[in-house]
Amino acid sequence: MTSSPFLGELLGTLVLMLLGDGVVANVVLKQTKGNGGGWIVIATGWGLAVLMGIFTAQAFGSPEAHINPAVTLGNAVMSGDYSNVLSFITAQMIGAFLGAVLVWIHYMPHWAATEDPADKLACFATGPAIRATGPNFVSEVLATLFLIVGLYGIGQTEAIPPGFGPYLVGMLVWSIGLSLGGPTGYAVNPARDLGPRVAHALLPIAGKGPSDWAYGWIPVVGPFVGAAVAAVLLGLFSV
Amino acid sequence: MTSSPFLGELLGTLVLMLLGDGVVANVVLKQTKGNGGGWIVIATGWGLAVLMGIFTAQAFGSPEAHINPAVTLGNAVMSGDYSNVLSFITAQMIGAFLGAVLVWIHYMPHWAATEDPADKLACFATGPAIRATGPNFVSEVLATLFLIVGLYGIGQTEAIPPGFGPYLVGMLVWSIGLSLGGPTGYAVNPARDLGPRVAHALLPIAGKGPSDWAYGWIPVVGPFVGAAVAAVLLGLFSV
Amino acid sequence: MTSSPFLGELLGTLVLMLLGDGVVANVVLKQTKGNGGGWIVIATGWGLAVLMGIFTAQAFGSPEAHINPAVTLGNAVMSGDYSNVLSFITAQMIGAFLGAVLVWIHYMPHWAATEDPADKLACFATGPAIRATGPNFVSEVLATLFLIVGLYGIGQTEAIPPGFGPYLVGMLVWSIGLSLGGPTGYAVNPARDLGPRVAHALLPIAGKGPSDWAYGWIPVVGPFVGAAVAAVLLGLFSV
Amino acid sequence: MTSSPFLGELLGTLVLMLLGDGVVANVVLKQTKGNGGGWIVIATGWGLAVLMGIFTAQAFGSPEAHINPAVTLGNAVMSGDYSNVLSFITAQMIGAFLGAVLVWIHYMPHWAATEDPADKLACFATGPAIRATGPNFVSEVLATLFLIVGLYGIGQTEAIPPGFGPYLVGMLVWSIGLSLGGPTGYAVNPARDLGPRVAHALLPIAGKGPSDWAYGWIPVVGPFVGAAVAAVLLGLFSV
Repeated sequence: MTSSPFLGELLGTLVLMLLGDGVVANVVLKQTKGNGGGWIVIATGWGLAVLMGIFTAQAFGSPEAHINPAVTLGNAVMSGDYSNVLSFITAQMIGAFLGAVLVWIHYMPHWAATEDPADKLACFATGPAIRATGPNFVSEVLATLFLIVGLYGIGQTEAIPPGFGPYLVGMLVWSIGLSLGGPTGYAVNPARDLGPRVAHALLPIAGKGPSDWAYGWIPVVGPFVGAAVAAVLLGLFSV
Repeated sequence: MTSSPFLGELLGTLVLMLLGDGVVANVVLKQTKGNGGGWIVIATGWGLAVLMGIFTAQAFGSPEAHINPAVTLGNAVMSGDYSNVLSFITAQMIGAFLGAVLVWIHYMPHWAATEDPADKLACFATGPAIRATGPNFVSEVLATLFLIVGLYGIGQTEAIPPGFGPYLVGMLVWSIGLSLGGPTGYAVNPARDLGPRVAHALLPIAGKGPSDWAYGWIPVVGPFVGAAVAAVLLGLFSV
Repeated sequence: MTSSPFLGELLGTLVLMLLGDGVVANVVLKQTKGNGGGWIVIATGWGLAVLMGIFTAQAFGSPEAHINPAVTLGNAVMSGDYSNVLSFITAQMIGAFLGAVLVWIHYMPHWAATEDPADKLACFATGPAIRATGPNFVSEVLATLFLIVGLYGIGQTEAIPPGFGPYLVGMLVWSIGLSLGGPTGYAVNPARDLGPRVAHALLPIAGKGPSDWAYGWIPVVGPFVGAAVAAVLLGLFSV
Repeated sequence: MTSSPFLGELLGTLVLMLLGDGVVANVVLKQTKGNGGGWIVIATGWGLAVLMGIFTAQAFGSPEAHINPAVTLGNAVMSGDYSNVLSFITAQMIGAFLGAVLVWIHYMPHWAATEDPADKLACFATGPAIRATGPNFVSEVLATLFLIVGLYGIGQTEAIPPGFGPYLVGMLVWSIGLSLGGPTGYAVNPARDLGPRVAHALLPIAGKGPSDWAYGWIPVVGPFVGAAVAAVLLGLFSV
């Protein structure tokens, strides 16, 4: 087995989802050590999940470490090079699916201990705080747009010490979670939502409910739109 | 479009307010994911908002990245060069206004879901914990004075690695929020308060109340005074 | 007295447990300043405990700073060099035992003030949130496997500035606690669990209950298995 | 006015106490924005207070930035050079006193709004969670001993990037607060306790109670003893 961008993106996204959905499970599922830990636990956990996902992606062959199809699309729009889009997104989707499967395994005794099916779905995919198609879509667009702008801002800083760049990207996602996660739970990443939602649909989770596919297109299309808009705006700027 | 200090200050302050007012909205508005998250969420969110605002300002053309009229004034007093004061403050005010508009859009379904008009105003502008003109004014002066001293302290350290300086400034504002934010919610930045207060007054926010202009001068004048006093004190010191 | 890897591992693990079990005691024991502080306090405290444990281990002679028998085993499997396994694990076990003794001393008045014997045991050794041998074992395997992968990921980054590597390892353990600590309290370290459990059994703790040896093998064997599996997988990869 | 170690220690300790006692006031006093924020707010605030205190001390002329008489004593014991002990401790005590006065001013409307005199004293000096002379003394000795060991551990790391050393010391104190602050509120610094206790005794704080001088010797003598013991142990080691 050898390192490759495909393997890096797959394992990086797997780690992202193991840690990201893992922190939701810890806070939301019943009788866990972290039950009721609150938004600070969730947002901090997601920021660190990104940090560790990036290190994993880099270690296994993807130095760019997108671990997010919206970032892959945004980069392609900005560079005009779409050659790796399909393979990266495939790897990210597989990784996100597998990461969610690991969360299911890791928290095995707690699915039956949790009554509300919505709480269980929340450990896989995002859902709106107040269901409203237009505003929910806009929120995902806006949060992802800012994610791309923030990545651009960090990326413009020259000579950042090795390892500190991924750390700052983790801070960026920590920030997005704390500040912009309120309306939709900030997917900002199509793989983060779709991969685990498929896992939720397929896995024999104790007492699970529906996978809410009616909402499922928003955290996929919204982030793609937000990233594309950001890329176009940044492209105009750099002319 | 080309980068410039004006654009950098505008977009940096926009990001500052999108993330800063965003975290207040997440904690204070009803039915959000972060509702009731507490002071640790708010203060952490603001510290990270400053971090990301600085990176944005630098990426779009303002290497000094003030994103705060009080910092701009303090620097002018210390350097004796007032040439960029007006343009910087204009950019910061526009950016703060636009950032608040984005918060309004991002949290759209939650304004009608929140009953108390004071909670909605808190997502735009600051307000006193206990209303008392003199002490509130003094608190804003003191907190801003220390902000300038802290920036000076960080700035005196030579050869800080690229990207680590903005990180430390984010820590500084995290610290100010945790420790000095209690009495007035730490505007410490005239644009942070005035821009969003204007937005609150102009926007058709569902069920909004008055914009509390009687208090509004304190988080504008107080930070300017604090920064000027700090600049004079630091100037005496460096003689 | 001279520095040595043995002394470094012993003191590093001692500091790890003083701070790690200390934060549990602060949150769980009654009438402490931090009582009821929640999972964010516990997970943050453990992340920082690892950070300080690493600096201590390095300062006293162990530049590799394992402070964890599972890490020692994983490194041996990967390198094929088992020469220091026995001495390292001995040092780590002694250090973990002594660190737990110091926690007992430091929180002395609070043992009698705390009624539930399970709360007191929690300040020494881990316990399952829901007791289930197979799943609990799997959780410890998975969390430790990811710990080793994360260490590998960080370690692959070249030219990390001095001191920043240990910081990232602290972040890694912060992440594991937040995201994967829910089912078993994340021992992920045989010394972290066994040394303090022995201390709990031997010390005259006021009103203590049984030391739960029936569970005690899981946080020892599970982390060893997880680390060995990780080492084998990483070995396959690097071929 | 010129920079000097005396001025640096004075202003660094002033900032330490403004931010450190400030965060306690924000959490403990009534009707503040941060009221009831919990131990995570307090411990994080103190860690950042140390970080900013160090930058301030360095910027104004004390590159060693002790801002703690116990650190000054420990260094003197280790080096054998006691020449600056008296001047440093004098500066630290004055700074701590003035920092506490600023907290009193900054939180002015909240003293009358807070009924319990013990809550007000807590914003100045430390107090035991469970009053017990021997154990309380031991806790302060132990926590300070580990503070000195931690500083030594960080200090042994060569070529830490500029600004990152103070950051790690802030992390160290964050860690001590989370993990060891439970029994006595971790003075670990004679100036941190005595200076503000004097301020509490002298200032006309609305509705204040006694300054608890019966306990006041413990957070002064305990840290000195802990630092001296640590210095002797480290001296034995380095022989």
